[in-house]
Amino acid sequence: MKIGIVGGGSVGQTLASKLIGNGHDVLMGIRNPSPEELAKERMMTKPLTEWIAETGGEVVTFAQAAAHGDIIFNATSGEHAIRALKLAGDGNLGGKVLIDVSNPLDFSQGMPPALLPQYDHFTSLGEEVQKTFPNARVVKAFNTVSASAMVDASFVKGDHDLFIAGNDGDAKRTVENLARREFGWKSFVDLGDIVGARASEHLLPLWVRLWMIGSSPAVNLKLVRP
Amino acid sequence: MKIGIVGGGSVGQTLASKLIGNGHDVLMGIRNPSPEELAKERMMTKPLTEWIAETGGEVVTFAQAAAHGDIIFNATSGEHAIRALKLAGDGNLGGKVLIDVSNPLDFSQGMPPALLPQYDHFTSLGEEVQKTFPNARVVKAFNTVSASAMVDASFVKGDHDLFIAGNDGDAKRTVENLARREFGWKSFVDLGDIVGARASEHLLPLWVRLWMIGSSPAVNLKLVRP
Repeated sequence: MKIGIVGGGSVGQTLASKLIGNGHDVLMGIRNPSPEELAKERMMTKPLTEWIAETGGEVVTFAQAAAHGDIIFNATSGEHAIRALKLAGDGNLGGKVLIDVSNPLDFSQGMPPALLPQYDHFTSLGEEVQKTFPNARVVKAFNTVSASAMVDASFVKGDHDLFIAGNDGDAKRTVENLARREFGWKSFVDLGDIVGARASEHLLPLWVRLWMIGSSPAVNLKLVRP
Repeated sequence: MKIGIVGGGSVGQTLASKLIGNGHDVLMGIRNPSPEELAKERMMTKPLTEWIAETGGEVVTFAQAAAHGDIIFNATSGEHAIRALKLAGDGNLGGKVLIDVSNPLDFSQGMPPALLPQYDHFTSLGEEVQKTFPNARVVKAFNTVSASAMVDASFVKGDHDLFIAGNDGDAKRTVENLARREFGWKSFVDLGDIVGARASEHLLPLWVRLWMIGSSPAVNLKLVRP
């Protein structure tokens, strides 16, 4: 499968490493893939030069990664997501499944983050991505768990759910099948159309809180319903 | 047990009915317990005259209910909560366990509600209640489930959690014991100090979404952790 990963941070590296390991044809895009940028220290993860050496992965521009992928992951920070996707290019996203993993987190006051006001009041980042790129088949998913759990559901012990939202039912089934086959996910909660991204993005304060007070990112939720 | 319920809406009525049925000495407070007000149509629940006829309950002012209770429930709407508790009176809340069931929901654009901006950005309604009444032993609890589930955990089928937050550990244990004994709750997630109210209040968009797309309020979450 041809996959484009938009974003070279911790989440982008984790997704790309796993998908390369599973044999897929992956390109990772960053804003400026210069030698200096690839060698730069990165928050909470390794420099991309190290990542490339370890995985054999390839780092290109946002636009090149998006043009390459039949499926595209938005793994940028929520604050910069729409700007990054504009650089990736509307034409490179149109008609494709765009998995929005990002969260609109506001770290301006340190930890714990709040949600960015422009994305949390009667809207969500997922909705704004879909509005900005109406031809992309946006699926909000994987944003409610740690990167380690995204690519290996068994990182969280027990029966737990992946929350998914999006306007395109076929695109959601594609993401569920990918999550099942590549990452071992077994159970899904379909939150309906992309407005459901409000629900899953609002889970972040709980997730961060559980991580802070429980000292483990290996947490998730199981929906209990009739 | 002497219990004061601040608020006569759907949540206040449900809590008061159950606790009266369990044999407790309950007073329900509303802003203005005049005959006209008691007879008034109420959103999503019955007029208080009917409630009184059915339960034998007594409706008084916010301040009288708060003065009466050794344990006090804040069952007002989030928008009006702090104003209502000011009418209840700082002196009537001080030293007591104040269970904050309210949620900062913004219905200004209809359904689904967002969170009220003044209570969701690096703060929460629970924190603002605690700041406004520093002598009250505020415990955020029961705000993440439907009123039916608050007073009867088996309304949701399966193993599921009640999320609790507050600065006073003894007060939290008091609330857990009450939840266990009076309402049948079995499993709790302690979110730490009152800052944890950010996490549980942010669950509301998910809860409302699940209710809207699943047509049942009998939903809750189970935390899966190491």
